[in-house]
Amino acid sequence: MNERRIGAVYAIRADPASIAERAQALALEQSVELPLAAVRDARIRDEVVARVESIAPRDDGRFTVRLGLAAETVAGEPGQLMNMLFGNSSLHDDVELVDVDVHPDCARAFGGPRFGIAGWRSALDAHDRPLTCSALKPLGLPPPELARIAGVYARAGVDVIKDDHGLADQPAAPFADRVRAVQDALDRSRRATGRRSLYAPSLTGSHDAIRAQMRIARDCGVGAFMVAPMLSGVAALALVAREAGVPILSHPALAGIARIAPPLLLGKLFRLFGADATIFPNAGGRFSYSRETCLAIADAARTSWAGLAPCLPVPAGGMSVERVPELRATFGADTMLLIGGSLLAAGDALAQRCADFVTAVREPETVK
Amino acid sequence: MNERRIGAVYAIRADPASIAERAQALALEQSVELPLAAVRDARIRDEVVARVESIAPRDDGRFTVRLGLAAETVAGEPGQLMNMLFGNSSLHDDVELVDVDVHPDCARAFGGPRFGIAGWRSALDAHDRPLTCSALKPLGLPPPELARIAGVYARAGVDVIKDDHGLADQPAAPFADRVRAVQDALDRSRRATGRRSLYAPSLTGSHDAIRAQMRIARDCGVGAFMVAPMLSGVAALALVAREAGVPILSHPALAGIARIAPPLLLGKLFRLFGADATIFPNAGGRFSYSRETCLAIADAARTSWAGLAPCLPVPAGGMSVERVPELRATFGADTMLLIGGSLLAAGDALAQRCADFVTAVREPETVK
Repeated sequence: MNERRIGAVYAIRADPASIAERAQALALEQSVELPLAAVRDARIRDEVVARVESIAPRDDGRFTVRLGLAAETVAGEPGQLMNMLFGNSSLHDDVELVDVDVHPDCARAFGGPRFGIAGWRSALDAHDRPLTCSALKPLGLPPPELARIAGVYARAGVDVIKDDHGLADQPAAPFADRVRAVQDALDRSRRATGRRSLYAPSLTGSHDAIRAQMRIARDCGVGAFMVAPMLSGVAALALVAREAGVPILSHPALAGIARIAPPLLLGKLFRLFGADATIFPNAGGRFSYSRETCLAIADAARTSWAGLAPCLPVPAGGMSVERVPELRATFGADTMLLIGGSLLAAGDALAQRCADFVTAVREPETVK
Repeated sequence: MNERRIGAVYAIRADPASIAERAQALALEQSVELPLAAVRDARIRDEVVARVESIAPRDDGRFTVRLGLAAETVAGEPGQLMNMLFGNSSLHDDVELVDVDVHPDCARAFGGPRFGIAGWRSALDAHDRPLTCSALKPLGLPPPELARIAGVYARAGVDVIKDDHGLADQPAAPFADRVRAVQDALDRSRRATGRRSLYAPSLTGSHDAIRAQMRIARDCGVGAFMVAPMLSGVAALALVAREAGVPILSHPALAGIARIAPPLLLGKLFRLFGADATIFPNAGGRFSYSRETCLAIADAARTSWAGLAPCLPVPAGGMSVERVPELRATFGADTMLLIGGSLLAAGDALAQRCADFVTAVREPETVK
């Protein structure tokens, strides 16, 4: 990658006679938003207007169009990168944003995962196996009940215990009370078992609110955070990555609304903005992403790219203990397996179900 | 509306035999994210789980499903409202979010437009006609050039002069230099003509950056702001609405056309979070929204709703001076007409083109 351009790849529905013109219109829409004839400044025509770098037919009948966007227009700001990639063109239904490539200088300006896969492994002292994750729910439970569930997860050996993404700062379980109670439960479990679990509370609201939540959580000794960048804004993810001091788990809420390829948004872009692990709806659960899409998300999160640390893929969304061997075979060891509702559906057998989950991941040879 | 529930309306693709089950699954996904059997707490089942309130066939073969979401789960936070409305379900491609209804207490917690249509009119002393708006572009011009264009717009009598949505805080035109230069040009024009124009610079980046930009702009006497809530996060819009002290124009970048109905997102929700005017891609321009969709956006922005001030609709995206009579007939007087690129395409005749635009709006009887 040239350090002055950002490569942006789109899939466009057009007929062969019009694709060149459509690609040029996309290049103008995503840069100067003016007809080329109205751009009178030579520097802007040469350096700021996006360039059509290639056009090629795709197997699905659409065309792949690669643009070179001017890196100077992005200036290291996550929202502005989203804007230059797909701001106005998200309003056009013939175009999908498929991929992005950036020079390592540009990647460094965003920063990417500060902990990455190695950071999760070292915080958990878990080096050769997938990590396990479960969720505190349902929404509406008071802090002592959420803490009780967290304690069951932790004593069973679940590595990362995250808030349900619906938990914010609500009257039923205000952030401060909830985080204190849940982290206490994890600390008690650690003293009893000698094993560490990380709690990832969900950060929500304005950046002021997010900072206040981080302060509260740090005072309690919380070891991770969760952010939903499409709800909070991608700038919120970047802010948390800069200031958290612990690994960050990204959540895909509201990420389905735009026509941005999931491997790009959930894999590459959330990674670029600082997610250390990225949750996505895995194939065969409650959502309809294909196995290929999910593998592509995992690949985008983990592959060597622009000098950034790798980000841990977290397949989720209706997974079950029975699927652990298949999930492991599909995603390998550098993965965090997230099972939530199907553990809680066990009711009084929750502890046993959690233990089954942990055993299936830690001692796969004992599971037939 | 019941003050303890938020009405959320979805269009779902399903067959008649499965729609009841699909609606129930949606209600669980958008609240507790657990099978109902796993919800053991009676208060949560009664008060927190979303309720399917009605199911009815639509003309397009889909079904309208109305849910009652628990207002307590939203707690007055814009990102959390988006989350409860469509967080996980945005990842399901059979469902579209179509409408929302809230009790006035809930609307008051968000605040809505602080100035509304009356605020724009009073700031501009323009009471019976559409307002006019144009954009500073292209991206890449230095501040003196942007200021020169702003001066031409202002002397011609354009009411609101907004940044191109691509302008952020870039090296070619850093926010502070640009805003000072542009506001100076407007002030000079006002002294010469006695007429006021409002400059709406685009606020971008973290909330810290946005606050710093608001301070700079206020020191220069800037009279409006622009925010793109899907780029900056809906919480950024709410923050600016609380702290700006001047009217706010929302921009639709990244708002997609996929699966949140545009009248809901660009009309109602941006209004709820505090937009005083909302830009949308009008029919017959560079975008493909239908005339009906655009009228529905305008209606959602202006109609009496939940005690909120009305928000000014701003049809845009490839409009021209020739279309002013039609735009006026379509949208009436409570509208801001935004013409950008087609004015700048006039090159040296820019001032004349701007004057034509302003005359067409202010003195429609002189335009044949």
